[in-house]
Amino acid sequence: MASDSEEQVRAAVLIIGDEILSGRTQDTNLRDIARYLGVLGVDVAEVRVVPDVLEEIVEALNALRRRYDYVLTTGGIGPTHDDITADAVAAAFGVELFEHPEIIAMMEARFGDQLNAARRRMARVPVGGDLVKNPVQGPPGFTIGNVFVLAGVPQIMRGMLEDVGPRLRGGRPVVSRTVRVEGSGEGALAAPLEIVAKAHPNMSLGSYPFFTPEGYGSNLVLRGRDPAEVEAVVGELIATLEASGIAGAREVEA
Amino acid sequence: MASDSEEQVRAAVLIIGDEILSGRTQDTNLRDIARYLGVLGVDVAEVRVVPDVLEEIVEALNALRRRYDYVLTTGGIGPTHDDITADAVAAAFGVELFEHPEIIAMMEARFGDQLNAARRRMARVPVGGDLVKNPVQGPPGFTIGNVFVLAGVPQIMRGMLEDVGPRLRGGRPVVSRTVRVEGSGEGALAAPLEIVAKAHPNMSLGSYPFFTPEGYGSNLVLRGRDPAEVEAVVGELIATLEASGIAGAREVEA
Repeated sequence: MASDSEEQVRAAVLIIGDEILSGRTQDTNLRDIARYLGVLGVDVAEVRVVPDVLEEIVEALNALRRRYDYVLTTGGIGPTHDDITADAVAAAFGVELFEHPEIIAMMEARFGDQLNAARRRMARVPVGGDLVKNPVQGPPGFTIGNVFVLAGVPQIMRGMLEDVGPRLRGGRPVVSRTVRVEGSGEGALAAPLEIVAKAHPNMSLGSYPFFTPEGYGSNLVLRGRDPAEVEAVVGELIATLEASGIAGAREVEA
Repeated sequence: MASDSEEQVRAAVLIIGDEILSGRTQDTNLRDIARYLGVLGVDVAEVRVVPDVLEEIVEALNALRRRYDYVLTTGGIGPTHDDITADAVAAAFGVELFEHPEIIAMMEARFGDQLNAARRRMARVPVGGDLVKNPVQGPPGFTIGNVFVLAGVPQIMRGMLEDVGPRLRGGRPVVSRTVRVEGSGEGALAAPLEIVAKAHPNMSLGSYPFFTPEGYGSNLVLRGRDPAEVEAVVGELIATLEASGIAGAREVEA
């Protein structure tokens, strides 16, 4: 939504795994990645979830890496037969896989003669690729071109993100503030929200309704890159709501 | 991943909303849809998350509806300026929007002369579309071609799914029974529900809370492929609720 003169840096997330598509596993990596990149000023512009099928991963990865500044993938880098993300990334870039000597050395130190074929699969990196540090547990991820290949296990993924951030060309950080309204639904909020949104086209203004046995209402989230503007619009929004007869709006912790 | 001789029916999910891409909101609709469709024998084969940008929604929707048997969308059907899903679906199908008389009649009954322009936005349906019932709160969703357009609020989305299931050409028939609980919220119901859900992993067990001026509670919907198991679990559920101190649960017509 940003329409200022700054360059907008955009990333896509490619979530790989049958367990997400079947509903067995609840993905939380998207949210963590989006928040992490948001602070860096990089917008997540599109997400796809694809199964553990080579052709589908290749097709999605090629579509996304051509369209966005960066692609972050999660999942499919473990030791089992359905962990084919490295194969798919190599195929997408038209290169071979090789056993990365740093990963093999780490694994030999850890496993000794227990370093079996399944574990060696996790040392495979596309030719031309570079490692992404894993500060948590297990082998590293890797990066090639504008693609970063991360683990699917959330705590490992988050650890790897810390080594991705410094390599990204980010914009300015995004500032976010939340105004909470109780006892009014979106039907009543829509008109005042639209007034404020139209007055600040370079900000994003979202309404996230909640319904609980105790009551209902909405959290209104203001996001922008100019901290002074975001600060000012918090007051402007509350005043506009009051002018529409909606009392009690107040800023809360996000 | 069904590898029997039955036809594989595949669906895609299109999640629409800046709040998901920004990480502000944790999506849970994908998991709920995947599990619900899984019981029907319909596989979720791909998911995309796109922002509240008309062209991006249209492009993703057209790609997905041509490739898969069904597409379910979530989000962007509220009354605010950024709720543009109906516009995007109409554009993707090359048709106009019209104010659906059934929705207008519902809204007039509910809001009377408070039926403002923002609320009327939610009555817009593409020409050729049909309604998807909303048993929870607010206006219905709609369907056109092989696309089903559902709310983004999880409990409303889950309620709408119950009207989508019977319209899908699934792998296998599903039996559904409803148990109604009055005076208990989801916080109290969660633990006994989880006990029953874990004991019957091949069934789906949904909770659809309602809030009315007369009171609140939840409709618990049991779904499975084995009629005898579904029948038995109705009794098991009521007994498990009673053992947790929740009295008065009773089977009702769906």
